[in-house]
Amino acid sequence: MNEVTLVVLATVSVALGLRVAAAAGWRKGRRKVGSPLPRESKCIYLDYAATCPIYADCADAMVPYLYSHWGNPSSGHAYGGPCRDAVAAARESIRALLNARDSSEIVWCSCGSEADNWALVGSLRARRPSRRHVVVSTIEHPAILACVDALVAAGECVATKVGCDGAGLVSARDVAAAVRPGETAVVSIMLANNEVGAVQDVGAVCRAVRAVDPEAWVHTDAAQAVGKIDVDVQALGVDMLTVVGHKFGAPKGVAALYTRRDLPNMLLGGGQERGRRAGTEAVPNLVAMGEAARVWLEQGPEIRAHSERMRDRLRRRLETKLADLETAVNGPLGAKEFSHAALPNVLSFSVNGIRAFEVLGDLRDTVAASASAACHTGSTSVSAVLEAIQVPTPYAIGTLRLSVGRHTTASEVDRAADLIAEAVRAHYTNKRD
Amino acid sequence: MNEVTLVVLATVSVALGLRVAAAAGWRKGRRKVGSPLPRESKCIYLDYAATCPIYADCADAMVPYLYSHWGNPSSGHAYGGPCRDAVAAARESIRALLNARDSSEIVWCSCGSEADNWALVGSLRARRPSRRHVVVSTIEHPAILACVDALVAAGECVATKVGCDGAGLVSARDVAAAVRPGETAVVSIMLANNEVGAVQDVGAVCRAVRAVDPEAWVHTDAAQAVGKIDVDVQALGVDMLTVVGHKFGAPKGVAALYTRRDLPNMLLGGGQERGRRAGTEAVPNLVAMGEAARVWLEQGPEIRAHSERMRDRLRRRLETKLADLETAVNGPLGAKEFSHAALPNVLSFSVNGIRAFEVLGDLRDTVAASASAACHTGSTSVSAVLEAIQVPTPYAIGTLRLSVGRHTTASEVDRAADLIAEAVRAHYTNKRD
Repeated sequence: MNEVTLVVLATVSVALGLRVAAAAGWRKGRRKVGSPLPRESKCIYLDYAATCPIYADCADAMVPYLYSHWGNPSSGHAYGGPCRDAVAAARESIRALLNARDSSEIVWCSCGSEADNWALVGSLRARRPSRRHVVVSTIEHPAILACVDALVAAGECVATKVGCDGAGLVSARDVAAAVRPGETAVVSIMLANNEVGAVQDVGAVCRAVRAVDPEAWVHTDAAQAVGKIDVDVQALGVDMLTVVGHKFGAPKGVAALYTRRDLPNMLLGGGQERGRRAGTEAVPNLVAMGEAARVWLEQGPEIRAHSERMRDRLRRRLETKLADLETAVNGPLGAKEFSHAALPNVLSFSVNGIRAFEVLGDLRDTVAASASAACHTGSTSVSAVLEAIQVPTPYAIGTLRLSVGRHTTASEVDRAADLIAEAVRAHYTNKRD
Repeated sequence: MNEVTLVVLATVSVALGLRVAAAAGWRKGRRKVGSPLPRESKCIYLDYAATCPIYADCADAMVPYLYSHWGNPSSGHAYGGPCRDAVAAARESIRALLNARDSSEIVWCSCGSEADNWALVGSLRARRPSRRHVVVSTIEHPAILACVDALVAAGECVATKVGCDGAGLVSARDVAAAVRPGETAVVSIMLANNEVGAVQDVGAVCRAVRAVDPEAWVHTDAAQAVGKIDVDVQALGVDMLTVVGHKFGAPKGVAALYTRRDLPNMLLGGGQERGRRAGTEAVPNLVAMGEAARVWLEQGPEIRAHSERMRDRLRRRLETKLADLETAVNGPLGAKEFSHAALPNVLSFSVNGIRAFEVLGDLRDTVAASASAACHTGSTSVSAVLEAIQVPTPYAIGTLRLSVGRHTTASEVDRAADLIAEAVRAHYTNKRD
């Protein structure tokens, strides 16, 4: 064996070892904003609003809690401590993320639906029987609307649903007008809408509601807002806020309810969460959600600016490529005077004369996007949100929701716009035949 | 550079690469029953009943769903499919594990408490208003007992609690006698007790209940049974069964309710789980729980036999080492005529004249075990289960719950028994001073 052979052998060995390590997910340190997505699919991901890719930072943080620290946080022995500490650290990260006063105001939940349901059911059960009225908007997530409808059907409350304007914005004055002093238990207005990216002025909602009834509680579903814009519960003045892990870098299966009110339990059993939510803590998921909070705390302004750049680039290229067709941008972004009230990462883009789900069908393996909220997929009815903001039906049927994020790259955006434009033309032409 | 140097360099490089890969959790294939636990702590783990270590097989199965397949299973594009398929495969594994007729009878939940609560609340809401009676045992988990108590306090049901004998066994005849024909909505009797390992004859309970009222539904909390003994919903004849991921190798934060009844939702929102449980599916956790099911399907008899050997070895060594003290084994294992009704992996061992939590305090960093159920830790009151089976108070205070499993080794058992015996003597002697 000569020297050259051995040098080659050594090099190959090192490369192989590192390759194996990389395949096992061994990477270190904070990922860069704008770095390409770690993924196997070649499909360009423009569906951050359906679910945010699990940040590799968060996955890395979980791994030790899968392979080594798998103890029960309630255990008094050596296996309990590291898990208890990890849960406390994650809770503190969420507290910092939301600027809550105390980490005891953060209660872990398994998903946004649980947190939303609990905010409503808990608020009703916590109040005097005379407070049985609920105010929500017509563009809330089904986790609010379906829950309100069920509570109304069961005779547990009455509800008023407040509409929005053409940009998807809910008026604080309208919400306050719906409040019934002495009767309203809770008002729930989402912080950012999942389909058109309208960011509500929940601070104004809180002030307006309290001017009418200082004892009405206010909840906001911030599922789509956290990890996209800064969310500060003190500045908003809300009593309760829902934050959902998989919308900003953690895996699916973890969420939290910020609450500065004592809510009766929805889940009963052991004494976890200081007696407020039974169930052994989902340690790896909580660790990941804490890490997602730290990603935002460290990179928030950068992620926001990057998302805006990518969204605007996508919009410009689509508008240029499809300049001869009838297109529209929905929500605040489509109305210059309200564009400050738009999420940085969502583009609701309509083309008159196509069916969005057919276009997305063609793009299934090349560009990932939604025809409406992910949980509506399969249904061909026009989305309730687009109806609420009075998008004309042909435009609503031709609406793509494109959402970008931390790992979207400029070349992906360009390529996606070209592919979308091509698919749109194919279907547009077909319709004209 | 000579040849030797280069050979050494190549060897070191390969070793380093593999070491890094190993540190990142890169291992392949089914782990062996009786192989040592992958863990960082030197503390011997005898607390499988509090939480089972996450099987490395399950963690491995999750990794691709953290780093690559993080899509929303509801998405119609390329990122949805692999996740949808993974959720379906995991559901099918749980179906096979429980011998359910159809995988649609398996509904994912976030924890055992949610599944238990849902079985009770859902059964009550599903039935005619005349069926408002519930039967449970006095030794159920708090996820059943606290929920029943809350429902009774809210006036939503009345409840009868059935006791057990000195071995911790609930009589099917007693349960049937508590049923009120035409009034009982649901009977909930746990399959295996978490503190003394008593395995109830739930099949006999079902038959006895149905002889009195064919329309009373039967639920069993199988949290401690699945992954320790075979559980077959057809053989048991139950309507609903709770299975909890972290008790048999999956991470905390995932469970399922087997149900062949239509239960109204507890969580409302999106249309996931065919409309029965809202919330985006916790894909990595579901994948892990599916893998845990496959581990049992492949290694069940071996895991059971290994656990029994380890438990019996532990018992013999403790009894030998402490032969001069007053000791007792609680539950069916302590009563020869009932020992067939004991879980293979739990040893509830009492010493008259010690305080178990003091002994465990000494052993904090060397032997991990419980003084009673983990969720009671910190409380010094005698456990309700030990009270129900009438363990004399000094013995109850001196009770250690030692639980073994798939990765317990003989040398760990021997060392743990020696350490426990030593700590017991230290405290026993102190008391006599």
